Amino acid sequence: MTDFALHPRLAADTFAVAELSLSRVLLMNDNRFPWLVLVPRLPEAREIIDLAPANRLLLAEEIDLAAAALRELYPLDKLNIGAIGNIVEQLHVHIVARQKIDPAWPGVVWGFGTAIPYATADAQTRVARLQAVLSRQ
Amino acid sequence: MTDFALHPRLAADTFAVAELSLSRVLLMNDNRFPWLVLVPRLPEAREIIDLAPANRLLLAEEIDLAAAALRELYPLDKLNIGAIGNIVEQLHVHIVARQKIDPAWPGVVWGFGTAIPYATADAQTRVARLQAVLSRQ
Repeated sequence: MTDFALHPRLAADTFAVAELSLSRVLLMNDNRFPWLVLVPRLPEAREIIDLAPANRLLLAEEIDLAAAALRELYPLDKLNIGAIGNIVEQLHVHIVARQKIDPAWPGVVWGFGTAIPYATADAQTRVARLQAVLSRQ
Repeated sequence: MTDFALHPRLAADTFAVAELSLSRVLLMNDNRFPWLVLVPRLPEAREIIDLAPANRLLLAEEIDLAAAALRELYPLDKLNIGAIGNIVEQLHVHIVARQKIDPAWPGVVWGFGTAIPYATADAQTRVARLQAVLSRQ
């Protein structure tokens, strides 16, 4: 896996949170929605169905871990999970905590308006809490 | 599983294609995009992380089956997979074949414009082809 490099667009839009067995966990720098992104550390990966079966299974488990962490830390009415990749080709999966009072509800977050960055201290706190929850699991 | 009933909104918007081990496969009645929806036949299911582990695994496998069927039958540049459920609470997963020339590219299909129904014969042909591919797997 030495050839893995995070896509520059993902690097620019997120904070690094943790490394799971397969995936890097990122926090989207957008305080409108608690929003994680999982990026399997597999060079050239683009579609889930092209992963080896063992990696597909790991990815499904890590999506569940990330979703459970969001639900533990944030109030939410619905989890939204998406593997899209129309703009950034590198395989990545979005896990978003949605509330009926959030600005995009009931629409999806993808393509919705403009991200509002976190204040630095807020981002650091959120990353630390996510790390604590993810490291327990 | 006797209490399972397809949500009326999903029933109205789709054609039934097949029954997999866990999920009903539906074809969205929208000729802008080849678009399948999987609905696990589990009453009250809403979030993937609340399914029993065996069902989570089955659902992940069935998502892969549906994605592979779309890729076999339709030209596509990217698969889009989403578990959203902000409007229809019944657990369902979207699998969409996207092309760079489709009307929503590179945005997502959810919330994009208005569905264009298939002509009846076209829908029947598509359902039959999907059934043939899914029954082989």
